[in-house]
Amino acid sequence: MPVGTLASVKGVPQDILEELGVQILLGNTYHLYLRPGVEQVRKLGGLHRFMAWPRAILTDSGGFQVFSLTDLRKVTEEGVTFRSHLDGSTHFFSPESAMDAQIGLGADIIMAFDECTEYPADRERMRASMELTLRWAERSKKHFEEHKNEVPWRNYVGTAAQSLFGIVQGGMDRQLRKESAERTIEIGFPGYAIGGLSVGEPRPLTREVVESTLEHLPTDKPRYLMGVGTPEEIVEYANLGIDMMDCVLPTRAARHGLLFTSEGKISIKQARHAGDEAPLDPNCGCRVCQRYSRAYLRHLYASNEVLAQVLNTVHNLSFYLDTMRAVRHSISLGKETGSPCVQSRPKP
Amino acid sequence: MPVGTLASVKGVPQDILEELGVQILLGNTYHLYLRPGVEQVRKLGGLHRFMAWPRAILTDSGGFQVFSLTDLRKVTEEGVTFRSHLDGSTHFFSPESAMDAQIGLGADIIMAFDECTEYPADRERMRASMELTLRWAERSKKHFEEHKNEVPWRNYVGTAAQSLFGIVQGGMDRQLRKESAERTIEIGFPGYAIGGLSVGEPRPLTREVVESTLEHLPTDKPRYLMGVGTPEEIVEYANLGIDMMDCVLPTRAARHGLLFTSEGKISIKQARHAGDEAPLDPNCGCRVCQRYSRAYLRHLYASNEVLAQVLNTVHNLSFYLDTMRAVRHSISLGKETGSPCVQSRPKP
Repeated sequence: MPVGTLASVKGVPQDILEELGVQILLGNTYHLYLRPGVEQVRKLGGLHRFMAWPRAILTDSGGFQVFSLTDLRKVTEEGVTFRSHLDGSTHFFSPESAMDAQIGLGADIIMAFDECTEYPADRERMRASMELTLRWAERSKKHFEEHKNEVPWRNYVGTAAQSLFGIVQGGMDRQLRKESAERTIEIGFPGYAIGGLSVGEPRPLTREVVESTLEHLPTDKPRYLMGVGTPEEIVEYANLGIDMMDCVLPTRAARHGLLFTSEGKISIKQARHAGDEAPLDPNCGCRVCQRYSRAYLRHLYASNEVLAQVLNTVHNLSFYLDTMRAVRHSISLGKETGSPCVQSRPKP
Repeated sequence: MPVGTLASVKGVPQDILEELGVQILLGNTYHLYLRPGVEQVRKLGGLHRFMAWPRAILTDSGGFQVFSLTDLRKVTEEGVTFRSHLDGSTHFFSPESAMDAQIGLGADIIMAFDECTEYPADRERMRASMELTLRWAERSKKHFEEHKNEVPWRNYVGTAAQSLFGIVQGGMDRQLRKESAERTIEIGFPGYAIGGLSVGEPRPLTREVVESTLEHLPTDKPRYLMGVGTPEEIVEYANLGIDMMDCVLPTRAARHGLLFTSEGKISIKQARHAGDEAPLDPNCGCRVCQRYSRAYLRHLYASNEVLAQVLNTVHNLSFYLDTMRAVRHSISLGKETGSPCVQSRPKP
């Protein structure tokens, strides 16, 4: 899922996202709550209509941004008081208000309100945080069930209803992750996310936690790994059984001139590309690689031209989506042949 | 002609420019000379190949930017010494080096090196400046004729050769403009530009100078008014007989949220658009008006989203190009019916 924080994948028009084959976008509840505001989006018919995006949308619960972007936050049993990173104004998110916000935004998949445990944390802290997330999960579900029929977007997108996913926490502790998974399943959701990773821990530890948590999640429900990852990682995690992922990496890296190609990563700002007439990635069929040279992309980046961000983002998204198409293709072949379903792309 | 200062119309991919019906782009020699440099563009096959733009390109001579952007410039008979606005480094443009630069960039239409007379200026200063521009026009033509066969871009675009246009100066003085036009025609060019306007003078004076200068320019050669104007002005000047215009207004205004519509100008940043589901311009067929609401465009602008610049620019260019299509249509009807050839668009 490409990330469209403020109801826009930065720099890329929606018709190009459709052309790239994006099936689902992620929007950030925290950001949309601040701008343009949930009421505004609700009045305008929900996110789909507001941003003119007819395909699927997932919103996060706002919990992660509250924990990572704001200072002066205060967590109580009831919820989180925090200050806006925009103007310092004070706000409050609870499981109930986070559900109201996401129901109002009208995404197809919405997320339970959780506490993202910081890293590192001791076992006592990890357990307390996990227990809080479980209590918030119950409250999220209860409030969602009571209010889900208020979704204002059904007429526009014509699909059934919103789905609420649960989130497994438990820090880096395998036992706590197991317990969190089992008790979240007990509450019961149509899909399960693994949260609280990619928060500064070493990569092998991330993989270990994902692998052990997956053992306890049902295979007949979507399993969503939040905030991951590099092209290699998304292949690796898909291979382990993850069905959904989101990450700002392809879009954020593009804005910094870091481009993913079938021949490895390229930093387009480097002077060695200034005279290079070759396309960014000779194996890529995207609009950018079909038309422009590395020399031109390097010039745009070096000259601070906005088109650099547009073209770089289109390419990186194309690369990620191609990667996931290859993953799906391998899975479908694997099902027929019984062979290991996914191979990593060749490295340069 | 949309302005693509640094070989990019800020924020808009070339395929969308093609789709909008852009026939010719303007590039700025001064900017391209500094970044990525003429030699770089020449080695890469000229501007067309460099920026992957198969349609026509015009480059200005660099004179206007030297006069408007740089401090510490020194004008002598030989040329202009100036400091880069980027790093303060010292450079020199003469008629000969400006021709070399434009031949190297490889545009289809290139411009003689001129001095843009400041406003206001007394008659003595206007005459001296006009005389200098005439001497530079002769040197420009001589150097161009001797070196025009060095164009490196012919193979790529497959057209004949570069054309060098002369520029009429003479400040705001009708007599000097007449003399400048006659003596520039004597030197002989395949097209003539009216320069030195839109430099701070009142609009009625601009119109007066354009109208009186046009009387002295041949009707069987393109007549190009530089740096103009609003949608109303381009219709007005086309009606007077101007064949070509360029202006940063549609693209620059778009970046500041100022949008041109069939119902008048709109400042999309205004709060009154925040809840407006209507398209920007109900009479516009562009991608933006067909898909997005004013509420969404206002949100993108207010949230500093890069997509605001992209979409706003696409719409403003579409509006300008539609305006010029209407002008051409009226001209072709006028030829058949003998009626006045161009009508202004209805105003709100």
